[in-house]
Amino acid sequence: MKPQQLDKIREEIDQLDQIIINTLVARKKLVEQVAEFKKNSGLPLIVPEREKSLLAKRRLEAKSQGLNPDLIESILKRVMLSSYQNQSTSQFTQTNPKIKSIVIIGGQGKMGKLFTRFLQLSNYSVTSLEIDQWQQAAQLCADADCVILSVPIDATLPVINQLPPLKPSCLLADLTSIKQQPLDAMLQHHQGPVIGLHPMFGPDIKNFAKQVIVTCEGRNSCDSEWLIEQFRLWGALIKPISAQLHDKNMAIIQALRHFSTLCFGINLLKENPDLNQLVELSSPIYRIELAMVTRLFTQDPELYIDIIASNSQNLTLIKKFAKLTNELIELFESNQRDKIIDLFMQTRDYFGQTGEILSDESRDIIASMAHVQGEV
Amino acid sequence: MKPQQLDKIREEIDQLDQIIINTLVARKKLVEQVAEFKKNSGLPLIVPEREKSLLAKRRLEAKSQGLNPDLIESILKRVMLSSYQNQSTSQFTQTNPKIKSIVIIGGQGKMGKLFTRFLQLSNYSVTSLEIDQWQQAAQLCADADCVILSVPIDATLPVINQLPPLKPSCLLADLTSIKQQPLDAMLQHHQGPVIGLHPMFGPDIKNFAKQVIVTCEGRNSCDSEWLIEQFRLWGALIKPISAQLHDKNMAIIQALRHFSTLCFGINLLKENPDLNQLVELSSPIYRIELAMVTRLFTQDPELYIDIIASNSQNLTLIKKFAKLTNELIELFESNQRDKIIDLFMQTRDYFGQTGEILSDESRDIIASMAHVQGEV
Repeated sequence: MKPQQLDKIREEIDQLDQIIINTLVARKKLVEQVAEFKKNSGLPLIVPEREKSLLAKRRLEAKSQGLNPDLIESILKRVMLSSYQNQSTSQFTQTNPKIKSIVIIGGQGKMGKLFTRFLQLSNYSVTSLEIDQWQQAAQLCADADCVILSVPIDATLPVINQLPPLKPSCLLADLTSIKQQPLDAMLQHHQGPVIGLHPMFGPDIKNFAKQVIVTCEGRNSCDSEWLIEQFRLWGALIKPISAQLHDKNMAIIQALRHFSTLCFGINLLKENPDLNQLVELSSPIYRIELAMVTRLFTQDPELYIDIIASNSQNLTLIKKFAKLTNELIELFESNQRDKIIDLFMQTRDYFGQTGEILSDESRDIIASMAHVQGEV
Repeated sequence: MKPQQLDKIREEIDQLDQIIINTLVARKKLVEQVAEFKKNSGLPLIVPEREKSLLAKRRLEAKSQGLNPDLIESILKRVMLSSYQNQSTSQFTQTNPKIKSIVIIGGQGKMGKLFTRFLQLSNYSVTSLEIDQWQQAAQLCADADCVILSVPIDATLPVINQLPPLKPSCLLADLTSIKQQPLDAMLQHHQGPVIGLHPMFGPDIKNFAKQVIVTCEGRNSCDSEWLIEQFRLWGALIKPISAQLHDKNMAIIQALRHFSTLCFGINLLKENPDLNQLVELSSPIYRIELAMVTRLFTQDPELYIDIIASNSQNLTLIKKFAKLTNELIELFESNQRDKIIDLFMQTRDYFGQTGEILSDESRDIIASMAHVQGEV
C-alpha cells in the first residue's frame, strides 16, 4: 500500500463516521416520537424486557456479520441511555386525578424541588412547607391528599413528631435514606396510608429515566399505588424491600462505602503524592477508582456525614471493618500467606456466580475507561 | 399517533440500527487495512495525537447536527478500542535486526510467554530459561544480546544475584512490579545496558494496544531504545519515570488499593449480606465498586499478596492508612463534624483541577454502567 492509499482509506473512515453520526441523529428523532406517544398514552417510558429483547436481536445480527456482539450492545445501551436522559420533560399523564393537593415538607430543598417539578409536570397541585414556616403547617396539611417529607436525615424524626393531624385518607411518605425509624414514626403518627421511599440518586438528575427508587411498605399499600405508577411514568425503576433489610443493605452500600472512600481520599491528602503523576501511572482500574474517589469530594460533605452518622448501626459496622483491617495487617506482618489465601478463597466462594457476572461487567467498564489512559 | 404508527417507527429504528451495524463492519475492515499497512511500514499502531484530533472533529460534527458530542466521542472511543483489541497479531517489523538472541528467565510463566510470543512475532530468536534449569544458565546467557527477567517478585533478587556473566553489550531488563531494588541489583551485577520495566497489565491481554509499560532508566539508555520502540510498534504506551518515584506511586496505586479491596471483600464475607439483594439495591456507582472488588477475587491471590508483601514500605503505608481510619472513626463517634468537613475540603483542594477532570470521567463510567441497573 502507498501513502496515498492510506489517505484514501482514512477519508473512507471519515465518511463512515459521518454515516454513524447521521444515523444516530435520525434515531434520536424517532425515539423522541416514541417517547412522546408513550407519555401521551400514559405508558411507562422504560420497559426493561423490551430493551433486553432488542439488544439480544442486535447481538445476533452483529455476530452474523462478524462484529463483536459486546461492542454493539455497549454502543446501543449508551445510545438508549442518552435518549432517555435527553427525553423532554414537558408533561406527564397524571395517574391519579383525585389527588387535589400535595404538600412537600422541605419542598424548597434540592430534592424537594426536583419532586415538586415532576409532580407539577404531572398536573398535581404541589405546595411547599418549610421547617421555618411551621406556624402554617396545620393549615397547609389539613386538606392535603399526600404529604411527602424531604428534609435532612437528622430533621426527619423531629418533623414527623410535630406533624399536624392529617386526613385519614392522606398518603404520608418520606424520602430519607434510612427507612426503619422514619417509617415507624410515620406509622405511629398517622393512621392512614404510609410509604417509605428512598430515591437512589442525587437531586441533580435531569429526569427519572432508569433511576432507582426503593419503596418500603408502610400501611394500605393500594393507596400509594398511584404514586408508584407516577414514578414509573417518569421512567423510574421501583425496587420494593422491607425497611429492615433496606437499612441493613444500605449500611454496607452507603455508610461503609462512603466512609472508606472518605478515608481513601484523606489518606491521599496526607501522603500527598503528585496526583498527575499518579494518574499518569494508573492502570484503567485504578483510574476508575480514583475517578470514584475524586467524585465524592466534589459533592456536599454534609450529605455524606449525615448518611454515615444517621445510624448507630453504621458506626458499629465501620468499626468491625477497621478491626478486620488490623487483623489483615497482622496476617501480612507475620507472613501468614496460607491464612490470607484461605480468606481470599472463601470470599470468592461467597461472591459465587453473582460475583462472576459483576466481574464480567468490570471488563466493559475498564474498556470504557481504557481509552483515556494517561490523558490528564 | 396510533399503535400501528408506533410499530412503524419501531421498524424504522430497527433499520437504523442495522445501518449502524453495517457501518461498523465496514469501518472495522478499513481499520484492519490501516493497521496492516502500519505494521508493514514499521509505523506505531497508535498515535494518540491523531486519535485526539479525529475525536475533536467528530465532536464538532455531532454538535452541528444537534447530537450530544460526548455520545459520539464515547461511542467512537469504544469502537477504536475494539479495533485495537481485535488487531491481528500476525507479524511485526523488527526494530533491531542486530539482536540475535534474547533469553527470557521465566519464559514459561504467563507473562514470560506473552513477551516471548510477541518478540517471536517480531522476528527475534527467544530462548526460555527456567529457574529449575539453572545448570544451563551460563551457557544460554553467554551469547545473549538481551536478557529479560520475568519471575515472581520474591525470586527477582535471588535470580539477579546468581546471574551468570553477560556480554558487555547485553541489555539486561526485568518485568517486576517494584523497580528500585531490582534495578540496583541489576546495575551492580551487570556493567552493560540495564533497564527496568513494569508492564501495567496482566498476562491475559490479547495484544499490547494501549497497554502501559512503565520504564525506569538504568544505564546506557540508547542501547534499550530498540526494545522500547518494539513495544511501541506493538501498540504499547511508554511511561518513563525514576525507580524511586515509581515505587512511591505504586505503593499507593497497587499495594494500598489492593489491600483495601481485599479488606472490603473479606468484610462482605464476614457480614454475609445477600449479594443479589445488595446488587439489586445498588446505585450505578456502588455497582461499579462491587464489580471492581469481585474482579480482584477472580484473580490469583498469590499475585496480590506478592505485590503487597514485596516491600516493607507498603505495610508502613497500609498501617498509616489503618491509623487514619481509626482517627476518622473517632471524629464520627465524637460528632466533630467541623473537623471532618475541614479534612474533606482540604482533600478537595488537594485533588484540584485533576480531580475535577477525573470526576467528570466518572460520569461517563457511570453512564456506561447505568444501563445494567438491577439486571443481575
